[in-house]
Amino acid sequence: MEEAIMLNSGEEGMYLPPGFRFYPTDEEVITYYLCEKVADPDFMADAIGEVDLNKCEPWDLPGKAKMGEKEWYFFCQKDRKYPTGFRTNRATASGYWKATGKDKEIHKGKGNLVGMKKTLVFYKGRAPNGEKTNWVMHEFRLEGSSITLKHHSQKSPQKKIGLFVRYSTKALDSGTAHIT
Amino acid sequence: MEEAIMLNSGEEGMYLPPGFRFYPTDEEVITYYLCEKVADPDFMADAIGEVDLNKCEPWDLPGKAKMGEKEWYFFCQKDRKYPTGFRTNRATASGYWKATGKDKEIHKGKGNLVGMKKTLVFYKGRAPNGEKTNWVMHEFRLEGSSITLKHHSQKSPQKKIGLFVRYSTKALDSGTAHIT
Repeated sequence: MEEAIMLNSGEEGMYLPPGFRFYPTDEEVITYYLCEKVADPDFMADAIGEVDLNKCEPWDLPGKAKMGEKEWYFFCQKDRKYPTGFRTNRATASGYWKATGKDKEIHKGKGNLVGMKKTLVFYKGRAPNGEKTNWVMHEFRLEGSSITLKHHSQKSPQKKIGLFVRYSTKALDSGTAHIT
Repeated sequence: MEEAIMLNSGEEGMYLPPGFRFYPTDEEVITYYLCEKVADPDFMADAIGEVDLNKCEPWDLPGKAKMGEKEWYFFCQKDRKYPTGFRTNRATASGYWKATGKDKEIHKGKGNLVGMKKTLVFYKGRAPNGEKTNWVMHEFRLEGSSITLKHHSQKSPQKKIGLFVRYSTKALDSGTAHIT
């Protein structure tokens, strides 16, 4: 990961030739990015911003991202009050994120669970009467062997970054499945 | 395009941080890569090899590619004998490529046709009794405004590179639709 940090250290963004994109597999999200960030809150990556889930409306996120045209990537803090589901903390000023479907297990190799992926949809208004939008969030968290390896080495537990999120709008999102 | 060429000039491949991939949109394939190659046969790109469609079996292509894990990219010569369809020239030693579905138009902006994309599937054996495989090829060619702009400037018409192809296996290919 040293190279990725170095590339990010300059003032300018990294140069990519046309057609090259940040398009990580679920396993790469966990093993190369979220594990590093959880172990070291100072870790930075070229493609990944940092954001407070509850203070941003989805349509403001592209402007806060470091990179991305149809998908945007962020680290964000894991809420500590409701460690298991914390649905009530997924609200923004104008709406809320609601989980859809079952969480998906992410493995490194065969049978080695390293993370989980949750898919959420943004609703405008207040539950249960919100209006569904096309904004989708994929939320990645460490699980299984990646937790035991990394969580205990965290330098500053006060700033507990525990999530990697990928935002997109549904209309543009049909292809994210191919690497999942 | 100069940067892409420069990056390719070294002995080693370009360095990409984890999660970064060559994942071009159809429009990028045409405007940034195929147009350049048609205009200048010496044009090279980091991610794109060169191959003779008829001399390679699909399973040999990953080994000939410059880059790619699930998809592989090549320039190849446009057959001159059968300029409209040249189905009979799509055979390899062990099988043949057969078009599936309708060609898709590729536009740059609204209504500006720049290319076409054909999807083909590989069959083992000889037509019409070949056995369908999971190998898929997306073949891109210039069309419309990109032809009038670039074709006439070609330096060496003998070596007429006119196609950009993306190979993949179907099982791994479900997501290529999201950029098409």
